[in-house]
Parts: sequence; C-alpha cells; structure tokens
Amino acid sequence: MQFRSDNAGPVHPRVLAALGQANSGYAPSYGTDALTARVTERVRALFEAPEAAVYLVPTGTSANALLLATMARPWQAIFSHEVAHVAVDECGAPVFFADGATLITVGGKSGKMSPEALQTAMSATGNGDVHAIQPGPATITQITETGQIYQLSEIRALYEVTRGHGQKLHMDGSRFSNAIAASGATPAEMTWKSGVSALSFGGTKNGLMGAECAILFDPECAWEFELRRKRSAHLFSKHRYLAAQFDAYLTDDLWLETARAANANMARLVDGLSRIPGVGIIDRPAANMLYLTMSRRAHRAAFEAGALYELAPFYAPLDGDMDEILKARLVCDWSLEDAEIDRFIALVAQIA
Amino acid sequence: MQFRSDNAGPVHPRVLAALGQANSGYAPSYGTDALTARVTERVRALFEAPEAAVYLVPTGTSANALLLATMARPWQAIFSHEVAHVAVDECGAPVFFADGATLITVGGKSGKMSPEALQTAMSATGNGDVHAIQPGPATITQITETGQIYQLSEIRALYEVTRGHGQKLHMDGSRFSNAIAASGATPAEMTWKSGVSALSFGGTKNGLMGAECAILFDPECAWEFELRRKRSAHLFSKHRYLAAQFDAYLTDDLWLETARAANANMARLVDGLSRIPGVGIIDRPAANMLYLTMSRRAHRAAFEAGALYELAPFYAPLDGDMDEILKARLVCDWSLEDAEIDRFIALVAQIA
Amino acid sequence: MQFRSDNAGPVHPRVLAALGQANSGYAPSYGTDALTARVTERVRALFEAPEAAVYLVPTGTSANALLLATMARPWQAIFSHEVAHVAVDECGAPVFFADGATLITVGGKSGKMSPEALQTAMSATGNGDVHAIQPGPATITQITETGQIYQLSEIRALYEVTRGHGQKLHMDGSRFSNAIAASGATPAEMTWKSGVSALSFGGTKNGLMGAECAILFDPECAWEFELRRKRSAHLFSKHRYLAAQFDAYLTDDLWLETARAANANMARLVDGLSRIPGVGIIDRPAANMLYLTMSRRAHRAAFEAGALYELAPFYAPLDGDMDEILKARLVCDWSLEDAEIDRFIALVAQIA
Amino acid sequence: MQFRSDNAGPVHPRVLAALGQANSGYAPSYGTDALTARVTERVRALFEAPEAAVYLVPTGTSANALLLATMARPWQAIFSHEVAHVAVDECGAPVFFADGATLITVGGKSGKMSPEALQTAMSATGNGDVHAIQPGPATITQITETGQIYQLSEIRALYEVTRGHGQKLHMDGSRFSNAIAASGATPAEMTWKSGVSALSFGGTKNGLMGAECAILFDPECAWEFELRRKRSAHLFSKHRYLAAQFDAYLTDDLWLETARAANANMARLVDGLSRIPGVGIIDRPAANMLYLTMSRRAHRAAFEAGALYELAPFYAPLDGDMDEILKARLVCDWSLEDAEIDRFIALVAQIA
Repeated sequence: MQFRSDNAGPVHPRVLAALGQANSGYAPSYGTDALTARVTERVRALFEAPEAAVYLVPTGTSANALLLATMARPWQAIFSHEVAHVAVDECGAPVFFADGATLITVGGKSGKMSPEALQTAMSATGNGDVHAIQPGPATITQITETGQIYQLSEIRALYEVTRGHGQKLHMDGSRFSNAIAASGATPAEMTWKSGVSALSFGGTKNGLMGAECAILFDPECAWEFELRRKRSAHLFSKHRYLAAQFDAYLTDDLWLETARAANANMARLVDGLSRIPGVGIIDRPAANMLYLTMSRRAHRAAFEAGALYELAPFYAPLDGDMDEILKARLVCDWSLEDAEIDRFIALVAQIA
Repeated sequence: MQFRSDNAGPVHPRVLAALGQANSGYAPSYGTDALTARVTERVRALFEAPEAAVYLVPTGTSANALLLATMARPWQAIFSHEVAHVAVDECGAPVFFADGATLITVGGKSGKMSPEALQTAMSATGNGDVHAIQPGPATITQITETGQIYQLSEIRALYEVTRGHGQKLHMDGSRFSNAIAASGATPAEMTWKSGVSALSFGGTKNGLMGAECAILFDPECAWEFELRRKRSAHLFSKHRYLAAQFDAYLTDDLWLETARAANANMARLVDGLSRIPGVGIIDRPAANMLYLTMSRRAHRAAFEAGALYELAPFYAPLDGDMDEILKARLVCDWSLEDAEIDRFIALVAQIA
Repeated sequence: MQFRSDNAGPVHPRVLAALGQANSGYAPSYGTDALTARVTERVRALFEAPEAAVYLVPTGTSANALLLATMARPWQAIFSHEVAHVAVDECGAPVFFADGATLITVGGKSGKMSPEALQTAMSATGNGDVHAIQPGPATITQITETGQIYQLSEIRALYEVTRGHGQKLHMDGSRFSNAIAASGATPAEMTWKSGVSALSFGGTKNGLMGAECAILFDPECAWEFELRRKRSAHLFSKHRYLAAQFDAYLTDDLWLETARAANANMARLVDGLSRIPGVGIIDRPAANMLYLTMSRRAHRAAFEAGALYELAPFYAPLDGDMDEILKARLVCDWSLEDAEIDRFIALVAQIA
Repeated sequence: MQFRSDNAGPVHPRVLAALGQANSGYAPSYGTDALTARVTERVRALFEAPEAAVYLVPTGTSANALLLATMARPWQAIFSHEVAHVAVDECGAPVFFADGATLITVGGKSGKMSPEALQTAMSATGNGDVHAIQPGPATITQITETGQIYQLSEIRALYEVTRGHGQKLHMDGSRFSNAIAASGATPAEMTWKSGVSALSFGGTKNGLMGAECAILFDPECAWEFELRRKRSAHLFSKHRYLAAQFDAYLTDDLWLETARAANANMARLVDGLSRIPGVGIIDRPAANMLYLTMSRRAHRAAFEAGALYELAPFYAPLDGDMDEILKARLVCDWSLEDAEIDRFIALVAQIA
C-alpha cells in the first residue's frame, strides 16, 4: 500500500531495457553522442518547437534551478506559489543557482498562483527604484503540488502578468505528463502556445531512473544554460544513459502510458475513498496527487496496517487527541496495482 | 581504436545487472533506502573508517566541488595543481559551490603538486592580513591528470604543508581505483592514514554508469555536506540506483578488477608504442593515462585510420607544418580489447 | 518643510568640526589608528560590553548585511518583518552578503514582528529535513519602519523564539538612538541584556555624514566579520574619518541630543496635525517617524506649497480621485526648526 | 618621515572646506542631489565623454569590484597582473562581487601585464569548450603597483588582445591622477581613446577623504551597475558629501595639483636616494611609488630613527642576517614636505 511518492516506485522495464541497449561499445561523452541528438529532435517534434534548446539533467531540482537561473539576474525576484517545490523542497537551490536572486512567494487556491496575487507581488518590486528587488521570472507547477491542473487560460493569464513586467514564465513540469494525460491539451498548447518560455519536463516521477528534460523555447540563452549546467556539475560524462532513458520515454508514448496509469490509479483511489464517511477529500484531484483528512486514530491504524503515505506537514505528531483531524498526502505511482489500491480502500473503510 | 577517455566506454555488465536487481518494488527515496545503507557500510569497511560520512553523487565534479565547498570558506583559497581537473575542466565549479572561494594553482612535475610550491603559495596568503585571501584546503588528483601516482610519502608531505596552515587535504580520486590497483597500497593508507581528510572516490570512469562516492573521513561537517548536496540539486530521489551501482562496484572487488584491466591495457599500449621510433613517451604512466608526442603527419594519419584520442591541448590545429611534433593524450578504458590495442600499435608503427 | 527623511538633513556642526580636527598629519590606515581604538573603547563602555567586537562601516545596509551574513549560513533563512528595510529597501543585500541565504518575511502589527508569527515561520523551516531551508537568525528594526518602539519584553520574547531554534537575534538600529531617547532604557538593556547578539548602531540618520557602527556582542565571529567587510569593499583606508564622526557622536552624548531633538520635532508635528480634521494619524509614533492619511487633494496642495515628504507607497499616483485617501510617511530630522514644523501644520490645517 | 602609503596622509584643506559648504540645509538623498549632477557633468567634460555613466563610491575596491562585476559573468575569468591590487589586496572582492567569476593572474615586467602573456592566458580559456572557464575582461593598474606607467601604445595593445576575445578592458586608476600628471596624456587619451571601457578614477589616495569615481564609457550596463552598487551597500544616502569631495577635486585642477606634488616629492626622494651607495633603486619610478633595496641593518636603523615605510613583502622578518638585502616600498603623499624627504635621505645616507 505505497502512496508515499511517485519517486519511490520502480523504473519502467522498457527504460531499463533501453539502458541495456545503449550499453554497446563506445560513445562520445558529455552529450555529443547520437542518442542525445536523437532525443533533442524528438523533444522538439513533440513540442512543435524546432528551435528549442533541449537539455537532459538528472534531477527535477537541477532542471528548475538551472532554467530559473538562466531567466533571472541576481537582483531580481523569482515568483512562485507559496507551496511550490522550488520554495519549500529545494533547500534554496533556485537562490543558489541564480547567484542570490530572491524568491518571493505568492498565494492562490489549490496550489495555483492567482494572477491578481502575482500582479500585486510583481508591482511591489522594481518600478525603477534601485532600492528594491527588481521583478524577474515567475514559475508555476503543472500539475500543482496539490494535484490540480492549470487550465490553458489560467497559464495565459499568468503569462500576461509576467509579460507586463517584461519578464518570462517557467513551468515546473515534474508531473507535466500527468497534466497532459488528464487534460487532453498538446504539449505545445500547454507550454509555449500559452506563454511558457521554459519547461522542466519531468521523467523521474513517471517511470525513469533519474532524468529530466530542460527546454528553452526561446534558445537565446542556450549557451548560458550549458555553462551553468557544467558549472553546477550536472553535465554527465556518460550522457548516453540519460538520453537512453528519455528515448525510451518518448518511444510509443511511454510517457503518456505511465502518466495515464498513475492518473487512473488515483481516480480509482479517490472513487473508493470518497464513499467512506470520516474521510475528507480536499480538492478532488485532477491527476495523481491527493490531499485528504482523517482522524489521527485512523491514520495510526492505517500506518500500523502497513500503509505508506505522508502526513501534511510530514512532521505532524502521531501522538495526541485521537479524534483530531489530520491532513495527509497520497500519491499514486504508475506501477501501483489495482489490488493494492482496493486493499487500502478496504482498510480505510474499516478504520475511518 | 578508442583512446579518448574512460568515460566513453560502456557500463560493466555486472553494474547493469545490479540496476535490474534493484528495480523490484518500492524503496524509500532520497537515500533512505536499505541499499544505500549497505553501501555506506561497505565503503566504511573498505576504508577502515567506521565513522566516515559517505555520500553518493552523480558526477566527479559534484563530488569534488561539494567536498571542497564543505572544507573551504568564501574568503579562502583552494590550492590545486595547475593542470588539475578542478582548475581547468569544471568551468569554475569549485568557486561556484564554495560561494566565491578563490582557486590558486600551484606547479609541480608530472601533474603532482610540489610541497615546496604549495608551501610558497599558502605562505603568500593570509598571515593575519585582512586584505589577503586566506589559506584554505589543498586538493590533489590521484592518479594525476598526466597519469602519475602520488606515493604515500608525497601525500603525507603535502598534508604536512596544509596542516601547518591549519588546513585540510582533499583527494580527487576520479581514477583512485587505478592508483590502488597500480600501487598496492590499501585505500586507508592512500587516504586518511596519509593525511587525506576527504576523498572523491570515482566510479564513472571505471565501469559505472554515473556514480561517485564522496567520503568525509572527518564527519564533523557531514550535515553541511548534505545541505549543500540538496541545495545544488545532487540529491537523487531514486537514490537506490546510485547505490546499486556502487554496491556492484564493491562486490567481488569489481572496482579493482576494472582498474587492473585498464592499467594492463595501458601497459600493453606503452610497451608497444615505446618501441616505435618517432613516438615520444612523456612520463611513462603508472596507470591508465598516457601523454605522447608524434609528428602532425602521424597524428593525421592515425585519425584518418580511425584512431580516437585527443591532442593536448585539444584545440591544437591539424593543419600546419607536417613535421611539427604535437602532444596527445591517450586513455585506456577497462573494456578495451587487446586486439584493438595491438591494431593501434601496428598502425602507429606504420605511420610514425 | 522637509519631512522626507532624516538622511536629507545636514551633518551636525560638531561632527564636521571633528573631521577637521582629525585632519592633522598622518595616521595609520585601515582602522589601525588611535581614534578608531578610542571609539571602540567608548562603544564598549556605552554598551557595558567590554568584549564586544566593534566595527565602523559607511552605510546602514552594510552594517545590516555584514552582521547578518556573519550570523547566517547560505542554506538558512533570515527572518525579518515584511516591511523591514532589509526586506524592501536594500535590493537583496542580505542575500548577496550571506552567499545566497533566503530572506523570509513575517507579519506583525505596527512594523513589529510578532513572536507567534516568528515561531510559526521558524517552525516551518528545518526540522532536520534536508529538503527545507534551515532556520537562521532573525532581525528586528528599532525603531520600526513605522515609527514604533519594541519594548524590552517584546525583544526578549523574540529572542526566546530564536533561541529555541538555536539561532540569534540582530537589531537594525538605524534609528536606535531615537528609541533610546524615547524609552529611557540603557543601550545594554535594549540589546544584549534583552537577547540581542548583534546591533547596527546607526549614525547617518542622526547627524553623521556617513558612519554606522556594527557591534557583535558575541565576538566569536569577529575575524569573519573583518574578512567579510574587506571582501565587500567596506573597510576604509582613511578610517580615521569614520572614527572621528563616531567620536564626536559619543562626546557629550551628541547621539542622544540629536535623537531627542528629532523626537521632539515629531511630537510637535503630531500634536499639531492630530487636531486637524481630515488628517488621520496611523499608530501615533513613539519617535521620529509618522504615517498619516489625507485626501489626494490635500497632498497635492501640500506638495504645491513646497512641503516635502513621501507617499506610501512612494509611487502612488498624484492623479486620480481627489477625495481618495492616501497614506504618507513623514520623518523629522534633528535639525528641523519649530517654525518650519508650525508652518507645515498651518498649511495642512488650511488644505485638509 | 612618512612613506607608508598615500592613504595615511591628510585630506586636502580645499576638500574639507567643500564638505563644510555642502552642509547647508537639506538635499535629496541617494545621489539625486544637484551637487552629484554637477560632478557627473564635470567628469564627462574632463573625459570628453558626454554619454559616460559616472558613479561615486567610497573605496577603490568598491569601484574596481563593481565595474568588473558589471563587465564579467560568473563563468568568466577576469585577467589581472599577478601583483595587481585586485589580486592580492582585496580579499577576493572581485570574485565576490562578480558572483563567483575566476581571477586569473598574468605576468609582465614592472607590474605591467604583457600583451603576449594576456594573449596566452585568454587563449587558454574558452574556445567554445563548455568545460573551461570562459574569457572575460582584463584589468590593468595605472600607475602600476610598482610605480610604472603604461604608455598609451601599451594600453592599446592590451585592448586589442581583449577585443580579439570579444572582451573589454578595465583600468584600476587608484593613482590615475599621478599617471596623467607624469605623462602629459589627456584623461580621454589614457582611457577610452586607448580602448579602456571602464575606469576606477581614484580620489582617496590623492587628497580626498574617501571617494572614488567609477566611469563606464559604454553606458549600456549603467542600470546594472546601479543595482549592484545598491545591493553591495555602496550607495550613500547622504551622497552630497561624496559629491562635494569630487567637486573640490575637479575645481581648479586640484586632482592634478596634488598628483604633481606627490610625483615631485617622489622625484626628489629618488634623486637623493639614488646617489647613496648601498641603496638599490628597482625600476626608477615614473610617479609616486618606489621599490628599493637596502640591507636589513639599514632598514632596522631607519625604522628605529622613525622612518615609516613597508618591507615587501610586508611580513619580511626584521630579525636575521644583517647583511641580507631586503626590498621595501615607499610611497610619497602629496602632503609630504621637502624637509621631511631631505631628512630621510640624510638618514639613509648615514645608515646605508
């Protein structure tokens, strides 16, 4: 009963097989190999962006931080939602990579940045005043950290705000595939056609071993990105093994297949849990992440029965008033089996 | 005829197999899994260092830069040899990770830092003078960038210099295995028993896919290292796949087996080339890296016949006086076959 | 009718005279002169802190940023009030000086950080979680950016919160003198006796030309401070002229004399304005800074009549609905004459 | 007998008087005052550069570090002579301000960077190789740290090297006035007409209290400079007092008057010393800085008799073989009196 994270699950067998196939003989290092070139072309085709600069890096944080550093200057603010991964889960990586830029967090429902709040925050910076932090790029997470999807019109509205301040929009797409699978939009529609300048296109949370794709739809700063990647020690020497993962990911739409599986798992989970009295569903999720509420007693019983998921915040104490309602976060990996989901639903039905 | 680099070769089959075995079911993320714990213990045992802090990172540059950042403060100098990887091949990574520390390069024969030159350089900093950069750690590369091995007494002599300034010694062991295989010293003797405080224990250049081990023999700054690793985006979520690589590496001494193979390949190569008039061997190598000289004409002929290696510097022009003597660097991967080496020797005998 | 800022006023004549007296012959540079040594001792005596490390720097921002950088590490958060100078008026200086530390802002009435809000913010960081920013020092402004004074008990309450997280408390005392003049507390009581570890003791806003005193009550990091000061180009070569300013400041309690004058000016101003219908006083000020409200019409008329002060925010448009109520900030310099204050009160009485 | 440094001398009386004159009434802060505007225009006129961006900062290190940071990016090298102030006397300030750029030192006689050495150093970086530090700006010191003057043709030759790599040339003119006074070139000829993009125009070492002028002849990055100045805490609130110093400096050519006085003092000193057996003159100085050699015995006797100057290096021990020849540095302030110089010459004649 594994609902902790989609980074606790296994690598998809086709990805593992691709690593094996890539392992014959010698290949030029540091991304000059043929497999990397092929992945670049496949990503450009998928996003209908023949000029895009495409880079592979090992972690989601490196994709986010490198792209944001390339988009911001040290005296600028980077704007994110207050629950964004870049703000709360990266130990200050965007600030470090961007040479001391300031991260300013902005509110909004369901983990989505509100255009009004962004406008207010951006207007409070700069204005030609040398004493103030200057406005810089904004970053949004798709799907959000609370499992919701930005609609295309919502993305565009945020883009318009950034554009009004001469700035750009980044998308942390660590679960981008789940958003595409759930929404039916094309990758191009969800990104550059809606005003997104740069995307962290996630793989690790969706069946890869450790590979993310950083895409600059505006390739003007491509060389700067490459220097920052090297300088931050994220340029792999045996680069073909990053490329092999993404090549498998893009073959026969594996990225969509695993994302759809994860979303379907979540739908099954929510469907079951929502019928159980004592379980509260917060913001019925659009993709593979769920926040729910139950009593402390029920959480304890679930954990004792072997269920694995995180309280929110993760350090909420398991001791205390047994009737107190505690929040929890559940994520469905693509690899979860129906039987496991049903077993968990049955367990909760019994204890909630 | 692949002599370009030991990062152009394949992953060892036992490493690939280990990745497959690690791929069953779920595992806690971010290094809290059982396989990572096992690797930590195995590394401690190998180095006879039960208290050592042991971390896995994906690249050699990340191991070096994270360890040096943990050992230095921004107003200090980090001392390296003038041909060291940290000085010429990392795009300033140590400076970036160490928040603006200064890298000062020091001379010495065969890529080895001379204790006298280090003493002079360290004495030229600090001295209680607030206007000057202050002395910080020194870093040496084992085997050196020119294929030589620091003897234990040489390591200790450098350690004594650093200690005299209240500073520590780091070893960039991206080819540490080759040094152990060639010298017969134990890992403990070559590191902490000779005064080394922190080691980048390489894997990627010796048969792994992309995994290096950063070891702090003095674990006082372990938590700082962990924060720096996260902050620089080098903490893997699916950490078990880094651990699986190192677990295979340490099983049945695979790390020594591949290192010995690479060294033997180089010995065969040097043995053959050194008999050929017109080929100059610079510093007969102790491990798997060779610098030689031939005429431009011979290099061109070798490249045209399909040989792959790098001129030194790599951008030396192939056009010009055909009799001019040019330097080149050749590296032997563990996976090179004798027949390929012999084929190259025969080719050079013909053209030199 | 100058109410713009206490940095728009003149230097006190006794300070100017002291500069002239310091200008005879030669003096050792970089702070090794006798006048600097005397100032150090006088500051220690004033604060009853014989071990304190005492440094002179030219700007308030340099005092704040250098002290905070010395108290924080790059992966930590620095906590300030959301209207604090360090957060909104220093273009990210604390982040720059602290090598990429994160500034987190906290709420609280009248520009005062609330202990509960600080506790919440500090508890949301760290907790042994490597993914999160770690807790670092807190900084408070005395008097606050809205003209209020932290009571000693309030300072101590904030100190207790920081101490509970193993962190320290800094005081931005750019108007510290005004707080002492208004409250009757001793400098020691308002700082280290209430838990303050480091103080930026302002001079420039209180009659000096450009000199601030950075005090580390815990001198453990004194050498680090000195290196950071030099490295950030704030160590003056002709240091005696910084020292001369502070020496005059501390002679015959000039610092208190000018602060009392400024506070008295403000009391006169508030007394007059508070009787005028149409003028709203926000948080009756304890020292020399006032926030008030009037209609846009009244502000326009005041500006046209030659009054100088700032709207809040400073970029609020002067065009628009003439009945709209706009906020403004007024500061009284020590050098303001009663006649000028009365002239302004009369003007406002006429137009409000 | 004060030959320690030109920052140990007094402020020129006309500068002190100007501070007094500037001290009447109120003035807008942060450089928006009329006096600052006037200085900007006077500097532009002096340099025949009507578009130049002109900024006042308090220290030579801040002028250098801010200009270099504006000219370089973090992954670039800044090239200086190996004895340059930026390399040995600023505790890493250029690296700090330039967000981790690398400082690479280059050789050349008499403290002058040789174009060939610069060409070699710049060619060893970059070349489209992402692994290497990229080439950035070069900086030269006029007059050099050893008292010599770059001829216009020498400046141009260095400029051509930087231009060949797409980079710019900075001049650390902390003693620029002495160079102009000695050479007869115009300020424009010695800077932008010879290829200099940015100048640190010194004042503090030539009679001011603490004011330097940073000039960007190419104003494209002016706003970036302003943000970096604020962010590094070098934007003065009571800016008129910086401006008053420079205004006095430029009035009736005071800057040339003091520089000529210092140079004449040095000529008198060298003239006297060069006749004394046992005194070696290293590189007969063109302006106000001298390196000489004498026996340890003679240095000790001079110090005991009250002479003040620095050994080179400053920490050379005064104990040891009395016949050993030690180097020393002597600087003549503008304010030195002939009688003091003659007294010192007579002393040396007696003891050398």
